Amino acid sequence: MRIGYYQFSPEFGRVEENTEKLADTLRSAKADLIVAPELATSGYLFTSVEELFGYAEPVPGPSTEKLTDAARESGCAMVFGMPELSGDTVYNSAVFVTPDGVEYVYRKIHLFNTEKLYFARGDRRLKVVDYKNARVGLLVCFDHMFPEAARTLALKGAEVICHPSNLVLPKLGQLTTRVRAVENKVYWILANRYGTERKKDKELTYTGKSQIISPDGAILASAEESRDELKIVEINPASARSKKIAFYNDLFKDRRTDIYEI
Amino acid sequence: MRIGYYQFSPEFGRVEENTEKLADTLRSAKADLIVAPELATSGYLFTSVEELFGYAEPVPGPSTEKLTDAARESGCAMVFGMPELSGDTVYNSAVFVTPDGVEYVYRKIHLFNTEKLYFARGDRRLKVVDYKNARVGLLVCFDHMFPEAARTLALKGAEVICHPSNLVLPKLGQLTTRVRAVENKVYWILANRYGTERKKDKELTYTGKSQIISPDGAILASAEESRDELKIVEINPASARSKKIAFYNDLFKDRRTDIYEI
Repeated sequence: MRIGYYQFSPEFGRVEENTEKLADTLRSAKADLIVAPELATSGYLFTSVEELFGYAEPVPGPSTEKLTDAARESGCAMVFGMPELSGDTVYNSAVFVTPDGVEYVYRKIHLFNTEKLYFARGDRRLKVVDYKNARVGLLVCFDHMFPEAARTLALKGAEVICHPSNLVLPKLGQLTTRVRAVENKVYWILANRYGTERKKDKELTYTGKSQIISPDGAILASAEESRDELKIVEINPASARSKKIAFYNDLFKDRRTDIYEI
Repeated sequence: MRIGYYQFSPEFGRVEENTEKLADTLRSAKADLIVAPELATSGYLFTSVEELFGYAEPVPGPSTEKLTDAARESGCAMVFGMPELSGDTVYNSAVFVTPDGVEYVYRKIHLFNTEKLYFARGDRRLKVVDYKNARVGLLVCFDHMFPEAARTLALKGAEVICHPSNLVLPKLGQLTTRVRAVENKVYWILANRYGTERKKDKELTYTGKSQIISPDGAILASAEESRDELKIVEINPASARSKKIAFYNDLFKDRRTDIYEI
């Protein structure tokens, strides 16, 4: 199975252009699944609810339809972030589009800082999606800080975790996601954005360095800090199925649920 | 509060010499708490239960008495690993000795590989110990791979986690323990051993690189791969008390226990 990340710098508020860039990437990718950053259609640095509503879309909607078309052309699926409008609520969502349409929508459960002012937090149970010969789980950015999120997905059978992000710290997310991969023995695709967004007195710089980690912690691919990068690697999702890490150790069977108090 | 690690290479089976080395360290340390490696009194590479029983001791017992005496002389406490004999069972334990005697014994709950052949696994609830102005939790080596263990201690109020280890991989434990510190916003003292042990056809080399991590992930101290090292740093345990990491984020209050399925 060929999976990868597409690291780029979405332009704030230019939904059509950003989505077209994602569609172009999909059409050119010789892969099964590409992961793009968080809020890849809209940009990140919202400063009011009204502004956010202007760029949020329902799912399915114009952006997911465009990307479904591109997925159909190339045979490649994509996980990407977008502000999802549902009734009068907007979620920070990751959408899994395949040649058959929208396969799954994940609504971010751990909102970072001012996201809490604009987005509603996800309140659905975490889900693992079967796609081709892989079981795929989705998380978004700040979810990486909470080991329980990836653990829940892995216990539900996830072999590949897709992680659209807008990380601003230069190294932390790369460390944590590598550890999440190892402690759960899963593949991890961190797709981070880069670039700087400015709004009056606010400024955020995103730190790139997207990466793909194997279930034993090897760095299979790693992006630069600040440039467009589409990177694809061949993986074998089945190698994430067994949690055996030593002759007498299985990472899941060895869990002491009789002792943990979490 | 002054805390540190003592990295050394215990000699297999030489309980008196190893314990004397720990006592010497305690007597010379100008600190409040020193952490020493896993199975620091006995060495690690057991090949039979009989052999293990030959070096296991009750707690309190000769080794903990010697170390309590040394703690009393210097006013410094120590957390160190030893095979603990209890009835006809041996645990891979970490013992917390203070000038007042044995304060707490932690029995390792995640046994690594062939340890399962020789040791019984710990079956007591995890506990946090108040010592001076810190709340202290203990884990041993392989426990680092299971985020639930440190999480349980942190949720119970641990501000400083003492982690006697006999790590054999060169980098993994340093990565995971740094992430454990950050995801729980606690201090972490990884005290690893170094050196090589040989037994007939078996050989293990331990990888040193003990480290002290701050609640925000800074590496406050870091040892070489292969030499004796006593390193002490000044910390403020109270800085691990608040879990606030951004204006709108608190690492514990933001946990989605309504969503996790672990």
